[in-house]
Amino acid sequence: MIVVMKVGTPELEINRVSAEFAERNLTPEKIVGKHKVVIGLVGETAGLDPLQIQEVSPWIEDVLRVEQPFKRASLEFRHGDYSEVIVPTPNGPVAFGKNHPVVTVAGPCSVENEAMIIETARRVKAAGAQFLRGGAYKPRTSPYAFQGHGESALGLLAAAKEATGLGIITEVMDVADLGKISEVADVLQIGARNMQNFAMLKTIGAQDKPVLLKRGMAATIDEWLMAAEYILAGGNANVILCERGIRTFDSHYTRNTLDLSVLPVLRALTHLPIMIDPSHGTGKSDYVPAMAQAALAAGADSLMIEVHPNPAKALSDGPQSLTPERFDEVMGQLAVIGDAVGRWPKVAAAVA
Amino acid sequence: MIVVMKVGTPELEINRVSAEFAERNLTPEKIVGKHKVVIGLVGETAGLDPLQIQEVSPWIEDVLRVEQPFKRASLEFRHGDYSEVIVPTPNGPVAFGKNHPVVTVAGPCSVENEAMIIETARRVKAAGAQFLRGGAYKPRTSPYAFQGHGESALGLLAAAKEATGLGIITEVMDVADLGKISEVADVLQIGARNMQNFAMLKTIGAQDKPVLLKRGMAATIDEWLMAAEYILAGGNANVILCERGIRTFDSHYTRNTLDLSVLPVLRALTHLPIMIDPSHGTGKSDYVPAMAQAALAAGADSLMIEVHPNPAKALSDGPQSLTPERFDEVMGQLAVIGDAVGRWPKVAAAVA
Amino acid sequence: MIVVMKVGTPELEINRVSAEFAERNLTPEKIVGKHKVVIGLVGETAGLDPLQIQEVSPWIEDVLRVEQPFKRASLEFRHGDYSEVIVPTPNGPVAFGKNHPVVTVAGPCSVENEAMIIETARRVKAAGAQFLRGGAYKPRTSPYAFQGHGESALGLLAAAKEATGLGIITEVMDVADLGKISEVADVLQIGARNMQNFAMLKTIGAQDKPVLLKRGMAATIDEWLMAAEYILAGGNANVILCERGIRTFDSHYTRNTLDLSVLPVLRALTHLPIMIDPSHGTGKSDYVPAMAQAALAAGADSLMIEVHPNPAKALSDGPQSLTPERFDEVMGQLAVIGDAVGRWPKVAAAVA
Amino acid sequence: MIVVMKVGTPELEINRVSAEFAERNLTPEKIVGKHKVVIGLVGETAGLDPLQIQEVSPWIEDVLRVEQPFKRASLEFRHGDYSEVIVPTPNGPVAFGKNHPVVTVAGPCSVENEAMIIETARRVKAAGAQFLRGGAYKPRTSPYAFQGHGESALGLLAAAKEATGLGIITEVMDVADLGKISEVADVLQIGARNMQNFAMLKTIGAQDKPVLLKRGMAATIDEWLMAAEYILAGGNANVILCERGIRTFDSHYTRNTLDLSVLPVLRALTHLPIMIDPSHGTGKSDYVPAMAQAALAAGADSLMIEVHPNPAKALSDGPQSLTPERFDEVMGQLAVIGDAVGRWPKVAAAVA
Repeated sequence: MIVVMKVGTPELEINRVSAEFAERNLTPEKIVGKHKVVIGLVGETAGLDPLQIQEVSPWIEDVLRVEQPFKRASLEFRHGDYSEVIVPTPNGPVAFGKNHPVVTVAGPCSVENEAMIIETARRVKAAGAQFLRGGAYKPRTSPYAFQGHGESALGLLAAAKEATGLGIITEVMDVADLGKISEVADVLQIGARNMQNFAMLKTIGAQDKPVLLKRGMAATIDEWLMAAEYILAGGNANVILCERGIRTFDSHYTRNTLDLSVLPVLRALTHLPIMIDPSHGTGKSDYVPAMAQAALAAGADSLMIEVHPNPAKALSDGPQSLTPERFDEVMGQLAVIGDAVGRWPKVAAAVA
Repeated sequence: MIVVMKVGTPELEINRVSAEFAERNLTPEKIVGKHKVVIGLVGETAGLDPLQIQEVSPWIEDVLRVEQPFKRASLEFRHGDYSEVIVPTPNGPVAFGKNHPVVTVAGPCSVENEAMIIETARRVKAAGAQFLRGGAYKPRTSPYAFQGHGESALGLLAAAKEATGLGIITEVMDVADLGKISEVADVLQIGARNMQNFAMLKTIGAQDKPVLLKRGMAATIDEWLMAAEYILAGGNANVILCERGIRTFDSHYTRNTLDLSVLPVLRALTHLPIMIDPSHGTGKSDYVPAMAQAALAAGADSLMIEVHPNPAKALSDGPQSLTPERFDEVMGQLAVIGDAVGRWPKVAAAVA
Repeated sequence: MIVVMKVGTPELEINRVSAEFAERNLTPEKIVGKHKVVIGLVGETAGLDPLQIQEVSPWIEDVLRVEQPFKRASLEFRHGDYSEVIVPTPNGPVAFGKNHPVVTVAGPCSVENEAMIIETARRVKAAGAQFLRGGAYKPRTSPYAFQGHGESALGLLAAAKEATGLGIITEVMDVADLGKISEVADVLQIGARNMQNFAMLKTIGAQDKPVLLKRGMAATIDEWLMAAEYILAGGNANVILCERGIRTFDSHYTRNTLDLSVLPVLRALTHLPIMIDPSHGTGKSDYVPAMAQAALAAGADSLMIEVHPNPAKALSDGPQSLTPERFDEVMGQLAVIGDAVGRWPKVAAAVA
Repeated sequence: MIVVMKVGTPELEINRVSAEFAERNLTPEKIVGKHKVVIGLVGETAGLDPLQIQEVSPWIEDVLRVEQPFKRASLEFRHGDYSEVIVPTPNGPVAFGKNHPVVTVAGPCSVENEAMIIETARRVKAAGAQFLRGGAYKPRTSPYAFQGHGESALGLLAAAKEATGLGIITEVMDVADLGKISEVADVLQIGARNMQNFAMLKTIGAQDKPVLLKRGMAATIDEWLMAAEYILAGGNANVILCERGIRTFDSHYTRNTLDLSVLPVLRALTHLPIMIDPSHGTGKSDYVPAMAQAALAAGADSLMIEVHPNPAKALSDGPQSLTPERFDEVMGQLAVIGDAVGRWPKVAAAVA
């Protein structure tokens, strides 16, 4: 941090301020000019609030953060080396990361019954997906809306996994369910609404399943990376970031605004793999193909796409789900771009 | 809900659609015009998504929500009668609500040590506050920032309560701490970041301590009331809503944008008491007095104001905290407006 | 501005960078510490973009703006002395400013016909307003919506002025109309959509009628003050700032989010008078009284309130207009708060 | 529009309301159910405000817009046929539209001197661009910032045109300059800040040069299309829409949030060609390549990219400009994706 002192600050006050910083375990460096004095602060500044530092003295003109607030999540932490998150699945390990082919995650918003989840799993696998997504516990705005089938849905996900060998990604709504969920899930999803549920971040950081961390709907890039930092600092290095649309002034046609610029921005800031979810990002299945293509072209490491055998009858998020037929077509279009940019998996569908 | 069918929809399709609604336990009413047919839907529509309904048939032109999605939180639910939340405190019961004097809640962001919390409690009580706020568990963007003193801070809050008789409001970050917190807290605070932590809402709705529900930083009014609905539906009717600033495009001078229009808006929608927090709402102590006065003039039932004996040394949120001296002055200014609008407590400070 | 150089920047590069700043007519001050060098920049920095400065050298770590980008609009420019804008009207001069009573501006969105505008003028004057607002040229989202009666409406405003002696405030949509508008208007309004129509700002800055500058719907405080700066720099010192609601993620119940925190924020930044428009700020007449009271309590110098004799038949903005009867009541409530805070005019209505 | 009457509305009131609609030249259709009555409104509803209609009677429960507010801009207006905007340039006519190859527009933010603009023109032409962009009149937040070289810059654009045969796109800041600008420009740009400068929209709609209409920084899709509607209704059918980033809560890393979802959304709503400007959309040259690739993959008809021979010395917007070398590389990457999706021009660069 850079602390700019007002012109004319008494020497005594500069020394007092420096001493106070030292007390807070920061190393102050006095930088002296003809008119101005500036104090550079080195040390554990990640948790400091510039406004707070400003309170130290009325002679402080401004406090400016120079360094990034995140550490373990930063690209510098790994000296510019992008990390990979390798997830074991029955079909073999799948790697997420900048230096790997794009991983496709597909499936319904919520697990409804055995037939639908197994059919969906088979269809998305045949189309090239490597993971099945599906909610057992659903975050719903209304307490009167369908809340997910809970524990019994976990059993159905296990059945779909057995039937297809796909990896399973499902959301944790309550850490009390973590044990049961971990028995079937290969990746634990933290939803947008829980991105700053710090108790959950700490608990999930203290176990070792890979984590999919969705961006909160009004979270800044820094806040998102700091949420990842909670998990990393807890000891779990396997974090995948997922952009799913942010809240802006216009939600008439799209439920959220999919912020694809996170791709180049995060690439410059962090080593963590980046997933894009165009289904939640737009809220409407018609818009999903174009945004999935855009995400791929801009460098996404993974795509999450909602697929439902009968969107009109879906218990949740039907409007944003593709049918399996449409998903087949979309995967075909994605392969064209994916091949052009050299990120499409070679024989993804062949295993099916 | 109103389902507008496209001009020329076959009779057969209208009947099919109606039948499908009936299957979903909705009562469809066919409303027939010369050119257009509209279907009114009566029943449990609160949990329905208009986009989802639209998927039922390609002949549906539009689906429009007429009724409000919330029920128990609505003013209609109590036939226009505003509710009161009465909280027992050592100094006697304190009532929050439209038909009661304004209740002032004051105190530091976090509980730091015994001397500071007891001094603050004494000072804010002397100035007219009826509740002491203070965080034992703190939500912090950074895992490296001070996270609150936790359980030991609860003991200090208990000491401050004993010393002053003030009621205690403190935040729940993890429902695992609920038992310990409930021993000292008179009102449980759900913070902005947990407003849609549905697991927490359900757990807190199932116990009977009064709840302070802060608005999420990008929560719509409807989402906020639906979060309250989770608590009410769980059986706990004692919910106070607290506006603490929303996230907008401009955060250069104020950390958040305090949305005071919630006062007339909520008054028309809900019977629940409304609190305004100008400290988090602006993020800077200089702006707190004007916004507190505005909130009072616009009809707030309660104010939450951060007070710290030495803001420059505060472990968190110092910049938005008033000193006890400044708080005294502000309470004096508030009394002038409060008296003018007939909402100021008669002898608030006299008990001290 | 403060230019922070990376650790290890060669002396030669620091000198080169300093020389380049000097070429741009900035005075660089080298501030040297043990590890770091920082360069302070003094001079015409208001028009500089920190990102642009950063391009000067890859050795620059960060560029931080310390000073405010506005000058003539700043409170420092008048050494802490708040300005007053005195507007001559047939009823005598009216002063807008922090050290004057609150000025009320009222009237319809658009001037519809002679009877309505004169009736409205009489009613709002009787209730205590000192200015009549009314649009001759209307900004409308749709080219098919009523665009205002234009020149003929100016004649009706002149008639209302003659009948009541009220000052007239009306919007300029096209500087080509400036001559005609200036014949009747006492204050020229620049609407939210033209806040950054720089050609208009320059033209209006070059003439001497007082100006009401509405905040753009997504304008930051700095952009708003810079728009005022265009007018001030043009030679016209009579600028009144008007907050009318900003665009946020939630527009379900209120059309805009009225940002009342501009009151304390602007007071600390600028000497210019501040008006609040709760009618556009909320978009609904039911919410206007509470927000007008809040604005007054928080220190507004002026209020702009829409009043229409028959809102249901208004050609524009009916939903946010008060009836004259309701306006009478609201003025009564405002007087209570205005008296309490010492800002209500003594005998406003008595002249009528 | 659909007007929903409250249950129990007297027959007499329904008739009165219907009569009032008829008076406003709307054709009301009464749609009657067992409990509810709904009134469908047919006619010129584009300019109507639902809130305004609601004022007609206290018995109205809700008013819902079913049809789109725009007409000439709608895809239905051309029966699903996408329009093309054909612009004559010295190198031959260039067509913008869904059924044509992607058109690249490149050049500096502002025209600085003859050498730089001609060099830039030559370089971007060689790389495949068909239009040169360059500002003669610049919208600047600060009155103290470089405002463009004005008329003399127009002469330099003419020279660049003569030297390369590229078409010219430049911004109109003041309609008073329209004559001079039209002598050199092939496409007139309306900037984001003037998107709702209705006087300008009308003037430009009344002449016949093609128009590039940038989206306002907080404009909804509907407002943007309504701004286009002003131009179309004025008689000028040659409108190209340009997304350049919207304002959201996070502007720390990107100046704006580039909203690429406008591509599928606009495609379903309007026949007009769509351009994407990733330079203003992100504000940083490092992010431009990824976002240009994304735009292309998602179906953009045209790209606008800032190129400057020496970004570090640019008089404006240097940080978001690519060097000519970097632009060459980016065009190469774009060609790969453009070929894959079948939208890249066959021999774009060969003409040079």
